[in-house]
Amino acid sequence: MTQKRKIVQCVPNFSEGRDLDVVEKIVAPLRGKEGVNLLSYEPDKDYNRMVVTVIGEPQAVKAAVLEAIGVARELIDMTKHEGQHSRMGATDVVPFIPIRNMSMDEAVELASEMGKAINEAYDIPVFLYEDAATKADRKNLAKVRKGQFEGMPEKLKDPNWAPDFGKPEIHPTAGVTAVAARKPLVAYNIDLDTTNVEIANKIAKAIRHSGGGYRFIKAGGVEIPERNICQVTMNLTDYTKTSIYRAFEAVKMEARRYGVNVTGSEVVGLVPMEALIDAAAYYLGLYGFDMDKVLETSLME
Amino acid sequence: MTQKRKIVQCVPNFSEGRDLDVVEKIVAPLRGKEGVNLLSYEPDKDYNRMVVTVIGEPQAVKAAVLEAIGVARELIDMTKHEGQHSRMGATDVVPFIPIRNMSMDEAVELASEMGKAINEAYDIPVFLYEDAATKADRKNLAKVRKGQFEGMPEKLKDPNWAPDFGKPEIHPTAGVTAVAARKPLVAYNIDLDTTNVEIANKIAKAIRHSGGGYRFIKAGGVEIPERNICQVTMNLTDYTKTSIYRAFEAVKMEARRYGVNVTGSEVVGLVPMEALIDAAAYYLGLYGFDMDKVLETSLME
Repeated sequence: MTQKRKIVQCVPNFSEGRDLDVVEKIVAPLRGKEGVNLLSYEPDKDYNRMVVTVIGEPQAVKAAVLEAIGVARELIDMTKHEGQHSRMGATDVVPFIPIRNMSMDEAVELASEMGKAINEAYDIPVFLYEDAATKADRKNLAKVRKGQFEGMPEKLKDPNWAPDFGKPEIHPTAGVTAVAARKPLVAYNIDLDTTNVEIANKIAKAIRHSGGGYRFIKAGGVEIPERNICQVTMNLTDYTKTSIYRAFEAVKMEARRYGVNVTGSEVVGLVPMEALIDAAAYYLGLYGFDMDKVLETSLME
Repeated sequence: MTQKRKIVQCVPNFSEGRDLDVVEKIVAPLRGKEGVNLLSYEPDKDYNRMVVTVIGEPQAVKAAVLEAIGVARELIDMTKHEGQHSRMGATDVVPFIPIRNMSMDEAVELASEMGKAINEAYDIPVFLYEDAATKADRKNLAKVRKGQFEGMPEKLKDPNWAPDFGKPEIHPTAGVTAVAARKPLVAYNIDLDTTNVEIANKIAKAIRHSGGGYRFIKAGGVEIPERNICQVTMNLTDYTKTSIYRAFEAVKMEARRYGVNVTGSEVVGLVPMEALIDAAAYYLGLYGFDMDKVLETSLME
């Protein structure tokens, strides 16, 4: 318990969400391995896509996910893939998120090792994105993936879009994979007591970066008819700089303009302890506080 | 990482806070042991007492603390002990607090094993208190320790105060030790923008159990002259039932009566993650939330 364990999270997305037999075969290499903890996998039928979350020791996680990518290469044929989510490969994206005792530089290094390994083992071309990007216009995944699977053969011929690893040719059935290092992302939704989605959209626009709002908020409005409400649905892309409580208070403040109330909020998926404790510290006016005062911190070193 | 580790905290108090050589010898057995993490030790000169916090695997923690108790028995002579804190033994109290994957029943069992081991190894009589108490009037430490070291030879002759382990005779130099199982305690202080300690006292009385307030709040008023404020200083003895945010809001509510404001608060020592996250969940109106959504939870299993 005295050695400081490095912990990384990896959230690979695979282009299969319908055939549960294939889904199980892809995640199989992530089970029962020393230093690897499979936290969740969520096949989605509409997207025909699966988001997997694993956490653990960096090299062990890398090796296990590499195996899963090999299974996806064998079992997914992108020439026959249909689904509502933008995609370009059997293994579409492989982001690494440093969680404990690990710098972003180390996560970038790990992503780079992974990109090289994927290409060498499976002959799939690889782009690096987000903090691992080698060029400014590769930071944003949407730009990297633009054109999708079908447009990639043409896109790769552009010297500006030569892959970071591999020849400028897609794998015929597995396409192209993008590997990243990035900060943990908090998916956070705030409920509004209105059925008017225009109000949710206007609030989302006011608080998000692209609309002039907070630097690390991506947001949109969405209607939840079965609950008779709307939500502002958000990704906080750097909770250490744009906190949960700030998003919450900003939405409350904007909602006032429309005579609408915030009635609650929800975290989707996993959230780092610090993101919530920071909110507690704000509302309680805690001073002289740091994460070493949290008992569990000592259990994770 | 797949096996659920049981984690216990132990907070032994030793009757030495002045001789730092003795202090170091007592904590030495708690260092560098597999499964034992020495979090802090704080010798206090006025009290002539030291509070030690260790955390780790139950049997490993028990064995290491037992060793430390042996050192305290050799090096502390209670017939010569002076200090402002109530005390009855070289090792005065040994509370165990279940932290993860461990029930209170298991902590009670561990406390009982420890009491037996202390008596067998060192011939020190032992009382069990709090959740480990074998009689109702042994639950409260203050009652158990009443009479202190000097009064114990007489007290033990009373059949009602026969020790839980050992003969009804104190150890001539190490006295008597009390072992407990209890819930984690949160030490929490709230700042008031007043120098009138009477107001802090009145608020403390209104919110604490003994004054008709919350079941698991012990509280008092205290003046902090160097900061020109007063505080309500609290122990939350079961934060799962009387939450931090409830104490905070209750003090704010009572302070209004005196035209006084709450300006902030502080946690003293260690606080369980859940105690703070519960406050975040309250202020953000989080629904559908449980601790498994906290990323770090998966790192502690």
